Amino acid sequence: MWLKSVFHVLGVCLVTACMSVTGAMAQSDPLPSWNDGAPKQAIVDFVTAVTTEGGPDYVAPTDRIATFDNDGTLWSEQPMYVQLAFALDRIKQMAPDHPEWKDKEPYKSVLAGDLKGLAATGEKGVVELVAVTHAGMTSDEFTKIATDWIATAKHPKTGRLYTDMVYQPMLELVDYLHSNDFRVFIVSGGGIEFMRPWTEKVYGIPTERVVGSSIKTEYKVVDGKPVINRLPAVDFVDDKEGKPIGILGHIGKRPIAAFGNSDGDFQMLQWATSGDGKRFGLIVHHDDGDREVAYDRKSVFGKLDKALDEGPGLGWTIVSMKNDWKQVYPGQ
Amino acid sequence: MWLKSVFHVLGVCLVTACMSVTGAMAQSDPLPSWNDGAPKQAIVDFVTAVTTEGGPDYVAPTDRIATFDNDGTLWSEQPMYVQLAFALDRIKQMAPDHPEWKDKEPYKSVLAGDLKGLAATGEKGVVELVAVTHAGMTSDEFTKIATDWIATAKHPKTGRLYTDMVYQPMLELVDYLHSNDFRVFIVSGGGIEFMRPWTEKVYGIPTERVVGSSIKTEYKVVDGKPVINRLPAVDFVDDKEGKPIGILGHIGKRPIAAFGNSDGDFQMLQWATSGDGKRFGLIVHHDDGDREVAYDRKSVFGKLDKALDEGPGLGWTIVSMKNDWKQVYPGQ
Repeated sequence: MWLKSVFHVLGVCLVTACMSVTGAMAQSDPLPSWNDGAPKQAIVDFVTAVTTEGGPDYVAPTDRIATFDNDGTLWSEQPMYVQLAFALDRIKQMAPDHPEWKDKEPYKSVLAGDLKGLAATGEKGVVELVAVTHAGMTSDEFTKIATDWIATAKHPKTGRLYTDMVYQPMLELVDYLHSNDFRVFIVSGGGIEFMRPWTEKVYGIPTERVVGSSIKTEYKVVDGKPVINRLPAVDFVDDKEGKPIGILGHIGKRPIAAFGNSDGDFQMLQWATSGDGKRFGLIVHHDDGDREVAYDRKSVFGKLDKALDEGPGLGWTIVSMKNDWKQVYPGQ
Repeated sequence: MWLKSVFHVLGVCLVTACMSVTGAMAQSDPLPSWNDGAPKQAIVDFVTAVTTEGGPDYVAPTDRIATFDNDGTLWSEQPMYVQLAFALDRIKQMAPDHPEWKDKEPYKSVLAGDLKGLAATGEKGVVELVAVTHAGMTSDEFTKIATDWIATAKHPKTGRLYTDMVYQPMLELVDYLHSNDFRVFIVSGGGIEFMRPWTEKVYGIPTERVVGSSIKTEYKVVDGKPVINRLPAVDFVDDKEGKPIGILGHIGKRPIAAFGNSDGDFQMLQWATSGDGKRFGLIVHHDDGDREVAYDRKSVFGKLDKALDEGPGLGWTIVSMKNDWKQVYPGQ
């Protein structure tokens, strides 16, 4: 009997040992889609430094906050922001109920597929587009609309679902940080309620760790049922100087690491990397015209100019998609 | 040698078994400061129902969101909100640099300890008080001021630190929810940056799970150093209808359980408990004049009237501090 117990115990321990070995093997290269080189090494060195107990750069788990931009950092933003594609699709879906749109901007340009015409309508046109496609419904209704759209909408060039147009190396980076007890937040200029329906499934980042731009809302009880209505007025723009403000408002702590790809992320990286102790800033440079799109200083979406010039001097890691990434999208 | 290994292994497993027993014992009554009765039973029944896999009311951990009011729900709000005591103390600390305050309201009343005089200055006086004591400094500076104050400030009646004026039964409730994979948020009318310096230490709730009222801020680079300045203008009031709005903005999911003590929490409980599936709402009724303070319908701070009348009909649990709590404060 005791021998049986001993074998049982040994069996359990062998299984445990086996699991440890598997764990160690899985950990041997946490970033398999990254080529060996300075950026990958800088990431691993940083994470090792802040997680080494007793080391000079140790940071307690409670302060391991990392923030990621979304468009162009975690997923594709070309040929246009995915949320803009969503808004244009919404206009097309809603058009049959609005015959007057055929002769009225910005709808006329949208329905004609004329992006230059849309751009010519300026801020007024874009604000109207957002109001019509993102407001005038309850929060629950908008979540359903966004959820349904993202489930089937495809990228115009690759034909992949937008949620498959995420960057495999960045998914590995988010997982690597999570497995080292970081709390990872998205801090995006995109609409907070547009992202939340899918970030948990796609990135493993729950709704409360998504910071974004927002429109005003109101709480009302209608026929005994409480609803939150989305109003046609901008509440907060989570871009440039807005990113540190959004971080303070939502997180309440300064990140020790920040990841972006455009000048819209400059202040977020500046805020994160200028704090005390070990810090990390990373900029994804879209220089891979073959596997993705090569763009930076002149791009309408995700313009990268100042951060490209000043980043290296500020100690930020600049990632060349072309040279530093083995693979761009998952499952390739 | 193998015998030694076996003993080692057995030793480890005995220790593990011992730890399991301790764990089970600790779990036998997760709410030891609650008297047996309907409220305690309702809490345990709810948590059991939503965590029982395969049961009709099961809720996946990802959706186990609980929100707690702070003032009067997690800690004392009598004879005045702690944050108001902080503001009054700040005025007294700053007064030597402002000799003109002696003849100017609302400072005159504050310095004379005349709360009625302060109240008579109305909203204008309170807004000025908030502006002077909560703005005009960086976010880091304010955090330090609040941190230093809360470390030593004491309740005028009990002489205890304010952070010891928390309710032991509610601390147990927060822990009980945490141990059942709930994500617990504070959703308070109090200032978000006033609470964040101490909520993790006192409640085990990290900064990003604190939702509160806020003033406007701006991001600036001063002499090469980025700062976030606190501006003398209200940004968001997280009370009444503001609570569901704050919850949507910060959490992005509807809570399945909400806990409050005043009419300011009505909409939060209404929003949480009117969702689909199993829901839970709880109101702490301050009816214990001996161990705490008895107040409800007529109170300046934490007025409880509508929620007391309508709560039971909405299925909310009303907790009598007098009858349902064995103990009010920790360490008694």
